[in-house]
Amino acid sequence: RPSRRASFRFSLQLRDNCKCGSCLHPETRQKLLDTGSLDVNIRPSAMQVNEEGRLEVLWPDGHRSVFDASWLYRYGQSFMHDTFEGQLDVETGGLRPPVETWDRTRIWKHFPEIAYEEFQSSEEGLKRWLELVYKYGFAVIRGVPTEKEKVVEVVHRFAYVKETSYGVTFDVVSEPEPDHLAFTGRYLEHHTDMNYREKSPGLQLLHCIQAKSSGADESMGKSFFVDGFYVAQWLEEHEPTAFHILSSTPIRFQIKSGGKRYSNLWPVILLDNQGNVSEIHYNNRTMGPLQAPGHIIIPFYHALKLFVSKLRDQQTELVFQMLPGDLVAFNNRRVLHGRTSFDPTKVTRHLVGCYVDIDEAFSVYDSLLAKGV
Amino acid sequence: RPSRRASFRFSLQLRDNCKCGSCLHPETRQKLLDTGSLDVNIRPSAMQVNEEGRLEVLWPDGHRSVFDASWLYRYGQSFMHDTFEGQLDVETGGLRPPVETWDRTRIWKHFPEIAYEEFQSSEEGLKRWLELVYKYGFAVIRGVPTEKEKVVEVVHRFAYVKETSYGVTFDVVSEPEPDHLAFTGRYLEHHTDMNYREKSPGLQLLHCIQAKSSGADESMGKSFFVDGFYVAQWLEEHEPTAFHILSSTPIRFQIKSGGKRYSNLWPVILLDNQGNVSEIHYNNRTMGPLQAPGHIIIPFYHALKLFVSKLRDQQTELVFQMLPGDLVAFNNRRVLHGRTSFDPTKVTRHLVGCYVDIDEAFSVYDSLLAKGV
Repeated sequence: RPSRRASFRFSLQLRDNCKCGSCLHPETRQKLLDTGSLDVNIRPSAMQVNEEGRLEVLWPDGHRSVFDASWLYRYGQSFMHDTFEGQLDVETGGLRPPVETWDRTRIWKHFPEIAYEEFQSSEEGLKRWLELVYKYGFAVIRGVPTEKEKVVEVVHRFAYVKETSYGVTFDVVSEPEPDHLAFTGRYLEHHTDMNYREKSPGLQLLHCIQAKSSGADESMGKSFFVDGFYVAQWLEEHEPTAFHILSSTPIRFQIKSGGKRYSNLWPVILLDNQGNVSEIHYNNRTMGPLQAPGHIIIPFYHALKLFVSKLRDQQTELVFQMLPGDLVAFNNRRVLHGRTSFDPTKVTRHLVGCYVDIDEAFSVYDSLLAKGV
Repeated sequence: RPSRRASFRFSLQLRDNCKCGSCLHPETRQKLLDTGSLDVNIRPSAMQVNEEGRLEVLWPDGHRSVFDASWLYRYGQSFMHDTFEGQLDVETGGLRPPVETWDRTRIWKHFPEIAYEEFQSSEEGLKRWLELVYKYGFAVIRGVPTEKEKVVEVVHRFAYVKETSYGVTFDVVSEPEPDHLAFTGRYLEHHTDMNYREKSPGLQLLHCIQAKSSGADESMGKSFFVDGFYVAQWLEEHEPTAFHILSSTPIRFQIKSGGKRYSNLWPVILLDNQGNVSEIHYNNRTMGPLQAPGHIIIPFYHALKLFVSKLRDQQTELVFQMLPGDLVAFNNRRVLHGRTSFDPTKVTRHLVGCYVDIDEAFSVYDSLLAKGV
């Protein structure tokens, strides 16, 4: 009896996923069949395996469907689960390499960089760079010509620019009357950008077009990057209570900018349905007062202190001086960035930045992988 | 004892939210204080209420903080909750009117429309239109000049365009060799756009610049819109089991376009942490085979059938013929859209569309409300 019921359920799935030209549009592969009008108790009137080893199903209204064995195997598998877990495996994965978390030692050992020439001239170069961005959440292109519009040209090699309230691109350069702390010479603590938006930008590009100092050993504002996934994993292993607090307490990030106010809630460590770390949201400058039950206050601050001290650990951070021609790209929902302070009266420093939809970048990466590049 | 502990907790919050010029940047209002280095057991060394009725707090290191009563009251409140619920009230809300769900009768009674002239010429007009988009998730601007670039000009009145893989703007026009069903003359069933992306576009604009037919009573493809929030609420009330299934079963939406593949999972009805309906995700054409435990299959199809039949109910739908000069805007995560079929050999129909970050639009709306426009 149970197996008979199971096959009845599967009948409905078969009918809904018929591959014929009137159920599935031949060019676009979009579904034409009207799922909403299917009889949920539908049963085949006949089934047989044909000469090519395909399953032919005849339906009561005379409609005929044909399924190949690999499709049946793939989707048949998904019904053996007792929960939704594992269902992602059928449609995604397989091609991309595993994500590699890093601290200072590991990132210097496999420094994720590529020459502009290689990135620009071949599909292999583009694929290699996208792979670095995917694996490490961070990669550098060296030797990008130091012109303002180059960062947009780099984006157009694989995607389109994600415009924001800061424009198509933005200049990180010290200003006399800044309305944002990025435009001063101040130390900028580790952060991820725009956590106050409904979805923070996924990929950020920063292109150094000027960095010079009038003093010989003057710091020009060193850039630093930390793998937030590494820090979250470290917390989960060594400070599980702090990990729990940071992944379950919503924090309001907010900003007033140009007369407008943006505000959104995120936990610092965002978990997916399976409990895996999926995003990091942290910016002390835009973090609003904690609003939580009273007993959470001390544990939250304690957990945040552990998180921040791990960010600042010299063994965790990648620190380097960006020089003209360097273009860094990083996953803004994984890698935290910042810079050391500098004296804007002595240092001329100009970065041009922009954002990109990261799923577009990874979709291009997948298509290059699928093509065997 | 408990009240003493509570005040200790609040001490830390006070120190973290000091308003002085060295803790909070005076121009940008961004936090300069290093939260990560605070002593979680900090206690004031003295406190007093000054002549202006403000609380002055002296800290052990000599630092002095001043808080006004309204701030203390607002944030003090947030610690009286036993859970995170209700915490949103402190920072948001108050200004925006309630969202109004609608069916055919209600939307025609208060048809959300505005003249182009009013939208374009005054802050009042812009505010009124944004309010309609916020309240109903749908609004029309009438009499927009029928030029291709006008939709971008309309966006620039309040935001920037959200570019996608379909470009800055896209043309909905019948094509000889379509790679998407939107570019045929086919009936397009109720759907929300781009559920296969990591976050579907929030606001969609469609501007009709051409609609004419060689036959007298030929349909030129009527547009229809359904308030998904209304349908979800109806299900919750009348078909709670279907509501549960549709809000708890993740569905894969996927598409292949221009050699790239996009794919993401959403429940049809997305709930927020408080169990309120926050987004609708539905497009039968891009919905992948259900991957779920076997016992979910029949209930899911049954629930979907109820959902779809409510979408198609003539009492639910807003249907109208878009004419040249009409520009509709709708919340793509709330309102489902579609169009009836037409004969592309007899009908010339041209819509120009684009997407906008909806939080940007609502942020502009909030700023107009705050200004008292």
